[in-house]
Amino acid sequence: MERHHFEAERQALRNQLLTMGALVEDRVHRAIQALVERREEEARRIIATDKEINDLQIDIDDRCLKLLALQTPLAVDLRLITSAMKINADLERVGDQAVNVAENVLQLLAHPPLKPLIDIPRMAGIAERMVRDALDSFVKGDAELARDVLRRDDEVDGLKDQLFRELLTYMMADPGTIPRALALLLISRHLERIADHATNIAEDVIFIAEAKDVRHHAGLGAEKP
Amino acid sequence: MERHHFEAERQALRNQLLTMGALVEDRVHRAIQALVERREEEARRIIATDKEINDLQIDIDDRCLKLLALQTPLAVDLRLITSAMKINADLERVGDQAVNVAENVLQLLAHPPLKPLIDIPRMAGIAERMVRDALDSFVKGDAELARDVLRRDDEVDGLKDQLFRELLTYMMADPGTIPRALALLLISRHLERIADHATNIAEDVIFIAEAKDVRHHAGLGAEKP
Repeated sequence: MERHHFEAERQALRNQLLTMGALVEDRVHRAIQALVERREEEARRIIATDKEINDLQIDIDDRCLKLLALQTPLAVDLRLITSAMKINADLERVGDQAVNVAENVLQLLAHPPLKPLIDIPRMAGIAERMVRDALDSFVKGDAELARDVLRRDDEVDGLKDQLFRELLTYMMADPGTIPRALALLLISRHLERIADHATNIAEDVIFIAEAKDVRHHAGLGAEKP
Repeated sequence: MERHHFEAERQALRNQLLTMGALVEDRVHRAIQALVERREEEARRIIATDKEINDLQIDIDDRCLKLLALQTPLAVDLRLITSAMKINADLERVGDQAVNVAENVLQLLAHPPLKPLIDIPRMAGIAERMVRDALDSFVKGDAELARDVLRRDDEVDGLKDQLFRELLTYMMADPGTIPRALALLLISRHLERIADHATNIAEDVIFIAEAKDVRHHAGLGAEKP
């Protein structure tokens, strides 16, 4: 296959990964909306439609394997394609976390609201944006944006700790709040995991950028014959 | 490079992955021992030495990339090597969970024990074994063992739910137990994540086995020229 055909295939892979990213981000967003707006049916829909994401993951993996098999890719292409496969797995697991959130939402909707929801939608907003930007940083090869994603992980951890303390206060003051507080606590942990997946992706992007540099200077680029 | 040299390289990759698996399994085991035996220093050691695991992950990734770059691998080799990279990432994250457990252990050791520890060491034992067997199933290409790993995930989930209910009872009865109960709850979630990583690995193994079959029957094996 010629080089320009390979470029077209790589563009198709990029687009498919962006679709995957948009899908899982949307699912996280809707899971949190279901919590805020107390919409049980929406939470159930998220749980019921997880298979779409798994199928798309398999499609993307297949595309990557074909790219590896049919080309004689350069070392830099190998790293990009194998990173795409890892990123694909991270995105699929972001989708799994949307399901976990939706399951805790169902538990919460059986009770009246515990408290106004401020930290959780804020955490979710940051985590969703981290996933989107991490994926963008990969697609654009933008290590600076990837570093910015890593910085935002601390913000998510800060909100998580703040919410933990607040929920602890509720629980200690009134044991009747414990089941709801625990469900909110677990949702915040699922959001933390989503931010972790974004962090994994961003670390891959930085690693690719640095490996390029290192290999460039050391002259160790293992190109295929 | 000749085929028998390629086989030797692949054997070296297998051994390195087994080393990685043994290291992270040992770290999980020691984190739980630190909890059971209340050994603060051991918990701190696990937190302090996480870098070893990250370094080994990078080494294994590099070996995989070299295998992809220097060979003309068959389609089945491509799938094995890219799976090895994904499994490597899962193992590294099992190591991260050992650190998370160790951090919760440090919180727990500041207080007297809440209750005799039975479910958590049992969950940990199952999760550690799942990681080992998932990795073995990959190395041996044993889809049957991989399926057995998937079945054990339900057992971990069952213990997790049982512990959750028990801890809830403690918390409701005596709010003074809440901080310790929450730390134990989080440890059980870290162990659940370890079992999830083992499940990811086992799913990869089954996927490889099935893809082989499918491609064999359909005659679609995309071999490199």
